[in-house]
Amino acid sequence: MAKAPRTAITPTRAEDYPEWYQQVIRAADLAEPSPVRGCMVIKPWGYAVWEHMQRALDALFKDTGHVNAYFPLFIPLSYLEKEAEHVEGFAKECAVVTHHRLEAGPEGGLVPTGELEEPLVVRPTSETIIGAMYARWVKSYRDLPILINQWANVVRWELRTRMFLRTTEFLWQEGHTAHATREEAEEETLKMLDVYATFAQDYMAVPVIRGEKTAGERFPGAINTYSIEAMMQDRKALQAGTSHFLGQNFSRAQEIKYLSSQGKEEFAWTTSWGVSTRLVGALIMTHGDDDGLVLPPRLAPQHVVILPIYRNDAESGPVLEYCHRLRSELAEQVYEDGPVRALVDERDLPRADKKWQHVKRGVPVVVEVGPRDIEGDTLMPKRRDAPPGEKKPPVPRGEFVDLIESELTAMQENLFHRALEYREQNTRTITSLADFEEFFTPDNVEKPEIHGGFAVCHICEGSETAEILAKHKVTVRCIPLADQDGFGEPVSGKCIFTGQPTTMRAVLAKAY
Amino acid sequence: MAKAPRTAITPTRAEDYPEWYQQVIRAADLAEPSPVRGCMVIKPWGYAVWEHMQRALDALFKDTGHVNAYFPLFIPLSYLEKEAEHVEGFAKECAVVTHHRLEAGPEGGLVPTGELEEPLVVRPTSETIIGAMYARWVKSYRDLPILINQWANVVRWELRTRMFLRTTEFLWQEGHTAHATREEAEEETLKMLDVYATFAQDYMAVPVIRGEKTAGERFPGAINTYSIEAMMQDRKALQAGTSHFLGQNFSRAQEIKYLSSQGKEEFAWTTSWGVSTRLVGALIMTHGDDDGLVLPPRLAPQHVVILPIYRNDAESGPVLEYCHRLRSELAEQVYEDGPVRALVDERDLPRADKKWQHVKRGVPVVVEVGPRDIEGDTLMPKRRDAPPGEKKPPVPRGEFVDLIESELTAMQENLFHRALEYREQNTRTITSLADFEEFFTPDNVEKPEIHGGFAVCHICEGSETAEILAKHKVTVRCIPLADQDGFGEPVSGKCIFTGQPTTMRAVLAKAY
Repeated sequence: MAKAPRTAITPTRAEDYPEWYQQVIRAADLAEPSPVRGCMVIKPWGYAVWEHMQRALDALFKDTGHVNAYFPLFIPLSYLEKEAEHVEGFAKECAVVTHHRLEAGPEGGLVPTGELEEPLVVRPTSETIIGAMYARWVKSYRDLPILINQWANVVRWELRTRMFLRTTEFLWQEGHTAHATREEAEEETLKMLDVYATFAQDYMAVPVIRGEKTAGERFPGAINTYSIEAMMQDRKALQAGTSHFLGQNFSRAQEIKYLSSQGKEEFAWTTSWGVSTRLVGALIMTHGDDDGLVLPPRLAPQHVVILPIYRNDAESGPVLEYCHRLRSELAEQVYEDGPVRALVDERDLPRADKKWQHVKRGVPVVVEVGPRDIEGDTLMPKRRDAPPGEKKPPVPRGEFVDLIESELTAMQENLFHRALEYREQNTRTITSLADFEEFFTPDNVEKPEIHGGFAVCHICEGSETAEILAKHKVTVRCIPLADQDGFGEPVSGKCIFTGQPTTMRAVLAKAY
Repeated sequence: MAKAPRTAITPTRAEDYPEWYQQVIRAADLAEPSPVRGCMVIKPWGYAVWEHMQRALDALFKDTGHVNAYFPLFIPLSYLEKEAEHVEGFAKECAVVTHHRLEAGPEGGLVPTGELEEPLVVRPTSETIIGAMYARWVKSYRDLPILINQWANVVRWELRTRMFLRTTEFLWQEGHTAHATREEAEEETLKMLDVYATFAQDYMAVPVIRGEKTAGERFPGAINTYSIEAMMQDRKALQAGTSHFLGQNFSRAQEIKYLSSQGKEEFAWTTSWGVSTRLVGALIMTHGDDDGLVLPPRLAPQHVVILPIYRNDAESGPVLEYCHRLRSELAEQVYEDGPVRALVDERDLPRADKKWQHVKRGVPVVVEVGPRDIEGDTLMPKRRDAPPGEKKPPVPRGEFVDLIESELTAMQENLFHRALEYREQNTRTITSLADFEEFFTPDNVEKPEIHGGFAVCHICEGSETAEILAKHKVTVRCIPLADQDGFGEPVSGKCIFTGQPTTMRAVLAKAY
């Protein structure tokens, strides 16, 4: 039997997927746990990926007419209580500020003093505090719509945390809009879902299904919640963004009222929508391989890393000169809206360590340059998504530079299509409970080719359905919108759990 | 007597400067108080100014080799306590999280439950939590320097708050660096002070004095603190940014140790430096006039606002078409690194209201376009820094477009020189206590031309000096670095308060 090739990440995805995920985060130097329970430190490389995500999303938000603003971190308890379902949904995970100073305690050391009259909750989300401001700002239909986004940190006291996927504090953006009509608010909700899908697919190279959440999975206080759902390489679903139609629930609770053009007092219609640093987790688990992170070029902090190779001082001068000239030539090429981001890594580290560090960090193209390459003026660039062990002939330097834009474009597309193919291979239409159970039985020895994924099924909502789903640790991810490939308008069918006639066709999966 | 011209802001600067400041913030729609004590809401126009500041600063930080990262919002109490002076400095203004959930209380309503074993402080600054991570990351001299910046929100429970200048929560950036040698850390401290001065002068058009703080004004735990100090239009000083040389104080407290190239264990040398949304306050108070905000073009969210003027539907078509063509032509012009930011304001509002809104918001150039302008293909653009009532002949459209870049450049320079001239007019070298007292006596009826500002004086540090300063509500702003115009190497002199010989020459002023 052939020996398995050595990989940079131990364990491999096949051996232990959850542990592989943690090891990629470590190997790619994206983040690490902090001394504060459930909070992580986002390290420079991880933060740079988030910055590129932010920049792209921010432009998409602005192109759709939104502006940014900033609202307080703290929410007075009484504000949070205004919308009953909402506070119910967040009460169990609120960090609460109760004091505003520290003083020497009786046993030495400092203790909190200066108790607040009203406790302040560290925002888990900002509907209530932002709504309170909108109530002040909105008087007439002329003040609508309000289309505001906020980039912020939020805190949800989670018991089980996992880096990027679920942390006590996380970074996100939250859009909050108010409209004069129901139609306009519903349109906004779906428009922002589309923006998220565009971002996921075109920038992250992560294929997603857009759909509506079932009642049990809605945002606390929302009328409808929509999400984008992606498939990770363990075939689990990851909810990568949500958009909520809040109806008049929050505007009634907070009195966001306006005089219509007919002079009638009306409640506004509101929406909210958000994506978070969780997207970095989605990126890792969609494209990462057994050598570490693989970054889609559009979000990569560096596109090309050039590694100078020399054995002695006599060689170093010409090699470094060549490398820096190459870097300048690459930086004159345009990829997307800006110059190709290229770096010469001159650090004094062993050659292999340096190379593998960039491989593990997911840099799209790594190229080593030594005296022999210079002699022939040819290079052996390595694309991060190339099959392991792939050998390609050297390319002339000029050709490499001229083609860098198309290589990056090709890599971006390849990542998307690879992920889409994976999802399609692991998605099945299922019409019976037996097939459902077979599909979601882990390590099915008799049918190893069937090993879970996305199941597209007719279901009805009810306790029987909920029980069977819970037993298999499967959740309803969404009811897909009809405008997507492979879906179309739902037709009637029978619930695979109860046999009841139903038109609800949902995507079921195990999920993060 | 001629009637004073009407102004858009009431009161004027001369009538009531503090109230004028609040009214400009309101009129320019920059921010407003929130329901949370001491916290403000930064509204879209104010946030857009902050975004432009962030972008420029971020580029300056990256150009000097820094990268961004993100650390937790919460600091365990025990971490804050590690550096004695530091915790002492912040203990009185800490928001403390003591509970992690809410439950129904005995009298109805929710109460905090789930008490934390160790209270968490909402970061007032992040030296301690970031230092704890650096202690993990630094093993050898090869791991140094660490050059990290963080964009974040921080909380200091201030008793008296004032929008942008002093709020309980504020947005800022905090750089935290660790170095192998004292020299390198000192160089970094001064380098970042220079970056701040460059940003203030070249982007904000705010002239600043770079200097060292006296012992009493140092950051809690620092060896040296440096600041940039600007003069507002009420002749008070505003500290606009600080850079701290922390020596080994924090690295000892947090055990940031490394093995030197000689194999010896050493403590790292650290720095920290920050600027905040307070800079928006500096911008308002440096350039604002009695008609509202005046924005330096480099930081203006819009450079040109075009206001279509028409009386009826027949006129609207051609006017709007002309306006949008003008906008495109302007957007093809380059100012600084990007296109000129121009907007057609088509909102259905009264003509004067619309125009004054943009004037109050400080848009550099506002131009109204009506049928008559179109007929002559000439425009009457109004630069925000033009003297009130200035009349200029109409300019042909093509000329206006061609010259927009130079107009914006000229305005940027004019704002800086105007502010510099104001500061110079209100700065005096003072050599006696009598002159000092005269200078800082408000509303000096006998010498109305002397009305405070920056006093450059020889002083010594001591209780007598402190008492006299306190009596006049004057503070030592800084000991200016010698490399600036008007300063040079300090020579010996006598303390104006005690008569003692001293080489300390300081800038004294009332301050925010």
